[in-house]
Amino acid sequence: MSKVELLPRIHTPADLLALSDSQLLRLADEIRDELVRVLTARSAHFASNLGVVELCLALHLTYDFSKDRLIWDTGHQIYPHKLITGRYERFHTIRTKGGLMGFPNPSESPYDLFMTGHAGASVSTISGLKAGDDLLGNADRHAVAVIGDGALPSGMVFEAFNNIAGLDQNVLVVLNDNKMGICPRTGGLAQYLDQCRMTGLYQGGKRTISELLKQIPVVGEAARASLESVRDGLKACFKDGMLFEEFGFRYFGPFDGHDLHGLRKILRDLKGQKGPILLHVFTTKGQGVPQAEEDPVTYHAPPVFEEIEGGKTIVKMKKGGARAYTDAVSAAIFDVLKDDPKACVLTAAMCQGNKLEKVRDAFPKQFFDTGICESHAVAFAAGMAKAGARPIVDIYSTFLQRSFDQIFQEVCLQNLPVVFALDRAGVAGPDGPTHHGAFDIPYLRLFPNMTSMAPGDEADIEPMLRFAMAHDGPISLRYPKANLERIDRRPAPIELGKAEVIEWGEDGCYLVFGERVAAALAAAKKLKDENGLNIGVINARFVKPLDTETILKAVDLLPVVVTVEEGTIVGGFGSAVLEAANAAGLDGKNIVRLGLPDQFVEHGERNELLADAGLDVPGLMAAIRDFQGLDEASQRPAASREDRLVPS
Amino acid sequence: MSKVELLPRIHTPADLLALSDSQLLRLADEIRDELVRVLTARSAHFASNLGVVELCLALHLTYDFSKDRLIWDTGHQIYPHKLITGRYERFHTIRTKGGLMGFPNPSESPYDLFMTGHAGASVSTISGLKAGDDLLGNADRHAVAVIGDGALPSGMVFEAFNNIAGLDQNVLVVLNDNKMGICPRTGGLAQYLDQCRMTGLYQGGKRTISELLKQIPVVGEAARASLESVRDGLKACFKDGMLFEEFGFRYFGPFDGHDLHGLRKILRDLKGQKGPILLHVFTTKGQGVPQAEEDPVTYHAPPVFEEIEGGKTIVKMKKGGARAYTDAVSAAIFDVLKDDPKACVLTAAMCQGNKLEKVRDAFPKQFFDTGICESHAVAFAAGMAKAGARPIVDIYSTFLQRSFDQIFQEVCLQNLPVVFALDRAGVAGPDGPTHHGAFDIPYLRLFPNMTSMAPGDEADIEPMLRFAMAHDGPISLRYPKANLERIDRRPAPIELGKAEVIEWGEDGCYLVFGERVAAALAAAKKLKDENGLNIGVINARFVKPLDTETILKAVDLLPVVVTVEEGTIVGGFGSAVLEAANAAGLDGKNIVRLGLPDQFVEHGERNELLADAGLDVPGLMAAIRDFQGLDEASQRPAASREDRLVPS
Repeated sequence: MSKVELLPRIHTPADLLALSDSQLLRLADEIRDELVRVLTARSAHFASNLGVVELCLALHLTYDFSKDRLIWDTGHQIYPHKLITGRYERFHTIRTKGGLMGFPNPSESPYDLFMTGHAGASVSTISGLKAGDDLLGNADRHAVAVIGDGALPSGMVFEAFNNIAGLDQNVLVVLNDNKMGICPRTGGLAQYLDQCRMTGLYQGGKRTISELLKQIPVVGEAARASLESVRDGLKACFKDGMLFEEFGFRYFGPFDGHDLHGLRKILRDLKGQKGPILLHVFTTKGQGVPQAEEDPVTYHAPPVFEEIEGGKTIVKMKKGGARAYTDAVSAAIFDVLKDDPKACVLTAAMCQGNKLEKVRDAFPKQFFDTGICESHAVAFAAGMAKAGARPIVDIYSTFLQRSFDQIFQEVCLQNLPVVFALDRAGVAGPDGPTHHGAFDIPYLRLFPNMTSMAPGDEADIEPMLRFAMAHDGPISLRYPKANLERIDRRPAPIELGKAEVIEWGEDGCYLVFGERVAAALAAAKKLKDENGLNIGVINARFVKPLDTETILKAVDLLPVVVTVEEGTIVGGFGSAVLEAANAAGLDGKNIVRLGLPDQFVEHGERNELLADAGLDVPGLMAAIRDFQGLDEASQRPAASREDRLVPS
Repeated sequence: MSKVELLPRIHTPADLLALSDSQLLRLADEIRDELVRVLTARSAHFASNLGVVELCLALHLTYDFSKDRLIWDTGHQIYPHKLITGRYERFHTIRTKGGLMGFPNPSESPYDLFMTGHAGASVSTISGLKAGDDLLGNADRHAVAVIGDGALPSGMVFEAFNNIAGLDQNVLVVLNDNKMGICPRTGGLAQYLDQCRMTGLYQGGKRTISELLKQIPVVGEAARASLESVRDGLKACFKDGMLFEEFGFRYFGPFDGHDLHGLRKILRDLKGQKGPILLHVFTTKGQGVPQAEEDPVTYHAPPVFEEIEGGKTIVKMKKGGARAYTDAVSAAIFDVLKDDPKACVLTAAMCQGNKLEKVRDAFPKQFFDTGICESHAVAFAAGMAKAGARPIVDIYSTFLQRSFDQIFQEVCLQNLPVVFALDRAGVAGPDGPTHHGAFDIPYLRLFPNMTSMAPGDEADIEPMLRFAMAHDGPISLRYPKANLERIDRRPAPIELGKAEVIEWGEDGCYLVFGERVAAALAAAKKLKDENGLNIGVINARFVKPLDTETILKAVDLLPVVVTVEEGTIVGGFGSAVLEAANAAGLDGKNIVRLGLPDQFVEHGERNELLADAGLDVPGLMAAIRDFQGLDEASQRPAASREDRLVPS
């Protein structure tokens, strides 16, 4: 890599204006170098950021986003934007706890308007920003959303298109098409129409494609120009832009998203135009790094790079580490689909994240990728279940929030056997608050007919999925973004609403919903060693229906019951235990609830975030000690506990 | 009205096949008569049902929905379908407790596949049904969804279009366009193209609009036919169908949706076709009843009819009754918008339901109707708030479920001052389970930064809305579909997280979140009269943040605290009280939680449903009596309570 000269001089986007054209090209190179440099330190979003360097520069050169409005959708393509909005010095901290976030973050910079990690909201928020600016007399502020072709199919994008057109807002939506999404390439005459449109623009801003059509020579030159070719041209034109034109946008493009000079020119032309505009640019995901250009899927958010050879563009990836919950679940899905031709699996554009490639390739008829369309995915699954198929909806916990209403109406209200596999349930690590799966325990247990589970360890996964597939109603299992652990015991079979008592303690117990079982066992062992306490561990497995028999026995008999869940403390598993104890007329004073706090959890490594929430081994130990009033080295209270029964 | 002759003979749709063309037309009349007859007994969905009579008959005459698949979207246009699928005899019970539901209901009939009240899901579910049938070897089953133009803009519809095209499914989507929605009327040449398409169809099934375009005479007849008109014709064509064609559907239409003979012919033609097809039919909302045709908004779901004069088509409506919560909230919104030009209100196609017509007419710049696009509406509001405006999102509790993820990401994560006014929070009466607002208390309190309120009576409404507008963060207020009550007291001002102690009791108290305060006061009075108990009533006002000071004092000092909420018992207000008591180390055994059960609540009158849930006055009284072990006439326990403090 060459020396970084220009980037340190860019403190605000206004500094870009002082650079010459050749300096701007050099700056683009320096930005790409910086992106590669980050990846030598840690995993991060990569290929998409390489693809938007010129677009980002062109936008900041054209607009003044200290007052104009800019939304990146999704936010993982924000890195170049961060580098030129005063965050170069801190850039090496990105995705580390306390460092820069890997997504837009308003608390970092006024140039970041919305913290966005869920795709497709940008067109709505930019429309709202424009409406607010107009209402408050700030109509001179320009409004720009950049949306990837991957985010485009999200339903709310079309809701927003429809509404922007209805309001006839001066909004520019830049479709950043990196050729991995839905839009086909452009044909020959579409370029003609681009020119035609730009010409029209220079002549005073023709408004609609209908008007633009009039500029196509038909009558006078009909004899010369083949009408056939005009018709073909029309078709090509419609293929590219008509969808947006139908929604009331003026369509411009497609343009080369790496031609900085050309982009600036187009943006300057469009800046003064009225009404909704869609600018279609083609970019290359991974631009400037050959491996990333060739394999943008792998390089979307690759693991840390092992080395950078010679020039700036040659990188290698370290091989991945330990097996994770996602691996075990996808393996179980594979086996289930192999055994049952009625079984199928749905993902919402997360084939890679859910590690379903092998399933897709082996069982293409049983595999459905809906794109980033979680709402549709769940309703679609409900239809399949109604027809007698056995769908597994495999979606990250946080993204499944988009399907809240479909889980309600299409699945639970109909009591249909849809299996929900919630990946990334709990803290999602460096991706931060938009990606943590903090809310699914309470939001899924809200609905009548729903059964909700979490495996306590690797051994629970396949039996739990098999149980789910045989269950006649909506059912979910959640699992974290974590490496697998296997608890040393002979696992009890999965039974509806039955917890697994791993160890019964007489001084208290951990009642764990999900992966923290291993941590609870470790904590119990240390409390025995250090405090002489006999603390049990129960693998709850179900939050709905709750194993009230086992749980109420624990609450009734033990001096302290610590509920443990990797999810918000509000309304979750611990609250379900409180509700059950209350309904049974029990004194719930001995219940201590651990979970994620009622605040948005920042980004950081999994172990850091769990420690912050008191969900690591020391945190679990402290919960018991605090309740018992013990210091670290105190022995158990001397009071006799012989009056307490220890169930068999 | 004439005598009903044919309807009683239609036990299944197969019976339709025995009728002559003229008998079918008579049957259509009888169905319309029956719809009018229902409205003389009670309020029901009316105009939309009048509009689909012929479409419903044509569909059932063409397909065999005992195996083929049919989804009505939304379900309120299901009445004619119910009348011809074996439910004529019970039809007079519609929308009464224990009677037929006003929406599709699989437990009533195998011809109803999904219980649907939320719009826009049909295209996804029909796609899922088709995929399931194909997977299970039932590819011969035809799949039809009927979607209204009002439901069409829902984002998930476009997610589904996109996916259906990707799968190239044999799915027919009928767009029931009753001219009240987004689609403009057809031009002259579009009819030509309809013929052209149907011709193409007969000739062997041309696939795309591109191919159909080739049939337009251009070269040979160019000299004769004005090229100008060809171009205009293309434009008109694209105006009607191109949007769907772009999504990969073949478009047919528009056709007259009241021409039963024509519809049958078209459907027969389309039945054997492959790939996704969109059939566009124009219907008249209110067809056959002049007043309903002229004013389909009022006649969408009018109050009960007062009289039917002479012939079948002349009806009058009773004037509406008492003032409701919705009236008071819309009046408060009016005042707030009048006072603050930054304030604005958003509705999602529920201008009438939310009674916002007056607001819309008085403050058009501060009023936004997004159509049935709740996801967009909330993200749009977030954008407005970010720009400095003060949006009020006025959406039914149950429909706001569509915005769960936008409330999370766009509003709460950004901590933006968006006010949510949740109408129909609690039981929604005869509309039933798709419309009850049962889940918003727990789902809103999940999110960090959210403040959640409910007015205890009419007097709380305007102060609470004013408080919300001044609050710097996300905030919600929920209110039921109920007549207003006003409690006789000098209302305490609204303060963040402060409950209002209306009466402090020494034998217990009702801790009420929302409108049941008046019922609790009545119950307390009767318990005093009948049992000599001194039961207090606290108007909780806030579920988040909870007034822990007041509430924990009650829990600590009183023998029984009954939490009351018109929402699910799972994770709601009562659970928040349990959580607070637990966190404070209190014994929560004296907390009794009342709310809606953890099951889907059926349809019925408000008072019936509240009584079933134990939320009426007798239910509230029973909660105290049961806890105290009292019979109806028992006096309070004699044990001294002098050791209890009564706070000032």
